[in-house]
Amino acid sequence: MIDWSKAYAARMERVLPSEIRELGKIKHPDMIHFGGGLPEPDLFPTEAIAKAYAKILSDPVLAKSGLQYTDTAGYMPLREYIARYMATLGVECGPENIILTAGSQQAIDFIARLFVSAGDTILVEAPTYLGGLRAFDAYEARYALLPSPFANATDVKTEDGSKPKLGYVMSDFKNPTGGSFTLPERNRVLDIAAEMDIPLIEDNAYEKLRYSGTPVRPLLSLDAERMGGIENSRVIYTSTFSKIVAPSLRLGWVAASSAIIRKLELVKQAADLAPATLNQMVLLEVLDEVFTPTHVEKVCAVYRGRRDAMLAALEKYMPSGVTWTKPEGGLFIWVTLPSHMDAPALVRRALTDFKVGSISGKSCYGTPPEMNTLRLSFSMVAEARIDEGIKRLSEAIRAS
Amino acid sequence: MIDWSKAYAARMERVLPSEIRELGKIKHPDMIHFGGGLPEPDLFPTEAIAKAYAKILSDPVLAKSGLQYTDTAGYMPLREYIARYMATLGVECGPENIILTAGSQQAIDFIARLFVSAGDTILVEAPTYLGGLRAFDAYEARYALLPSPFANATDVKTEDGSKPKLGYVMSDFKNPTGGSFTLPERNRVLDIAAEMDIPLIEDNAYEKLRYSGTPVRPLLSLDAERMGGIENSRVIYTSTFSKIVAPSLRLGWVAASSAIIRKLELVKQAADLAPATLNQMVLLEVLDEVFTPTHVEKVCAVYRGRRDAMLAALEKYMPSGVTWTKPEGGLFIWVTLPSHMDAPALVRRALTDFKVGSISGKSCYGTPPEMNTLRLSFSMVAEARIDEGIKRLSEAIRAS
Repeated sequence: MIDWSKAYAARMERVLPSEIRELGKIKHPDMIHFGGGLPEPDLFPTEAIAKAYAKILSDPVLAKSGLQYTDTAGYMPLREYIARYMATLGVECGPENIILTAGSQQAIDFIARLFVSAGDTILVEAPTYLGGLRAFDAYEARYALLPSPFANATDVKTEDGSKPKLGYVMSDFKNPTGGSFTLPERNRVLDIAAEMDIPLIEDNAYEKLRYSGTPVRPLLSLDAERMGGIENSRVIYTSTFSKIVAPSLRLGWVAASSAIIRKLELVKQAADLAPATLNQMVLLEVLDEVFTPTHVEKVCAVYRGRRDAMLAALEKYMPSGVTWTKPEGGLFIWVTLPSHMDAPALVRRALTDFKVGSISGKSCYGTPPEMNTLRLSFSMVAEARIDEGIKRLSEAIRAS
Repeated sequence: MIDWSKAYAARMERVLPSEIRELGKIKHPDMIHFGGGLPEPDLFPTEAIAKAYAKILSDPVLAKSGLQYTDTAGYMPLREYIARYMATLGVECGPENIILTAGSQQAIDFIARLFVSAGDTILVEAPTYLGGLRAFDAYEARYALLPSPFANATDVKTEDGSKPKLGYVMSDFKNPTGGSFTLPERNRVLDIAAEMDIPLIEDNAYEKLRYSGTPVRPLLSLDAERMGGIENSRVIYTSTFSKIVAPSLRLGWVAASSAIIRKLELVKQAADLAPATLNQMVLLEVLDEVFTPTHVEKVCAVYRGRRDAMLAALEKYMPSGVTWTKPEGGLFIWVTLPSHMDAPALVRRALTDFKVGSISGKSCYGTPPEMNTLRLSFSMVAEARIDEGIKRLSEAIRAS
């Protein structure tokens, strides 16, 4: 009988079951879940999606091409739509600058595959998106802290003194903190990437979920302007349709220099051949209805109410010494407990004894973690239940 | 401006645009294509698929769960269905032995990620599936020839004398040759894998496409019997719904020891989070109608006719010195030209001057290629056009 543990590649030592998945197995009928971060299914445009599948599958010509393999980079009319959408964000580009991926998670995985070899250093924020870290882990990356926007790029310390290979940031409503870069911060991040001469992933998965404040141009838009166009930009932009349309279509995209897109096409060809044709055709059908101010505001209104309810409840119940972020969008609020507190232990106790789910911030660091941090998501809990959930959490904190 | 060529990881040096994709750009209105290998879209069960989408999306509860993220390993009722299907192939297993992937291409990619580090040797057949090689290339694998079923395992020569990490074979109707292992060959392949103590990928993507001859049990079935069950087997079985249902659903699977499935779940979580929920629910709906002897025979009858037409035309037109395989199933026939002939040059000339597409066998080798080989697919050409296509190809050969 084979000894699997000896057969696995070294990278698998880094790939461990996540705390979130393990804790997700603890169930109570009355549990209030702030742990996840899934979009609210009541907001999915189910009717528009149903209509689009029916329309395409009842047309013999569309149905045949919809069920067949497609171009690896994606369905051309959808790539053209996304290029036009990027222009509304201040990024002039064409379909040759766009590739479709299975959500933005696959985009991050593919970009890592393009740039990262075992032992290479990636510059990340602290904290940062845990799914990004798990994708990078598969390529045996190491991490160093992205210099804060007002520090010097030469402050970067990699473990062995080598130059970093890649930077990874979220610009709007970051997972897990909910924070966004200001315009001066964006410019400084671009300065740093230029000084270090590294490619920079801009993960902008939550960009459309703004509930207050004023939009700021993406890093890709600013860098393309500096460099005379997207073709010369070092920024590789990723986003997804999972938050505004539906995660189950598994469609996200990369916008970048066409040189990068052509390479990512080869990566995708080897990894899973091509995106699902039919889902792309359906997405394109529904986007005209769904990527509109009216529908986006309908979605944002619900999440805005939940964010406000959570902020109000935190204010009402949290003991002194606990602080939290006040995000302008996205799905997350980041809580900092008094420095002596152990968030992983609190999270477990809150689940088992107080019937409220959260995740400890510990998994959200490529660099040494702050152990007194929590990520809360308001996305899946009805406004009326949020007060009760935060009350339970504050009781768990007081009992610790 | 960034110099991308210096930024890419070493693995990208191995990832090159394929001959097939490049040649695919040569178009003629009258071209006859034996190059591809896509399933015939007239055979897709479009009505059943349309009905299934409509059914699920018109049910508010099913629609919500269908559009949300799902379990990483896949939709449980579909995993259970596949486990029952594997039992019909002689593999006793449960849903814990099954994971859904984006086609069997992603299954191969993930298994490579699990086992292969840069420089590791994979044992392959010669020729073998070129998409498998491209997936392995991304992990900077090297290749050695799997000892022929009647040679000794100790005959294996890796470049540096190290032990191979993995074996990769197709058991039924291999891409590109159309050949299948006999029962004694299967047993010998298992002996070799056991002697070398390596995991063995059994890629069985074409298993249901049998047009003549008698089915032989998969390697996984034989090895599970030897080892006292799938949990102790070293065989990692991959297959796909792309050939009998539709490629666009992007759904394939792995059947293996639950230890492997749990690891692949972690790989998938980091790579693209989860398979598309809705597509899995739709697939499960249509399988009862489609994975039946009646529907499978309907599909096989069409391909059988095309295979027979291609074999008859080869017999009729090919000059002496040209030989070919006579497959019992699948989508491919493998042609060997006289040894002095250069197949890549012939393929190009046949496309441009004779308006017939094929691919040279050159890309189908991890080990040194035979330059006088061609892969022909009969899958996408109507029976009546096959004679003309093979006539053109034989003219191209005679003109070389």
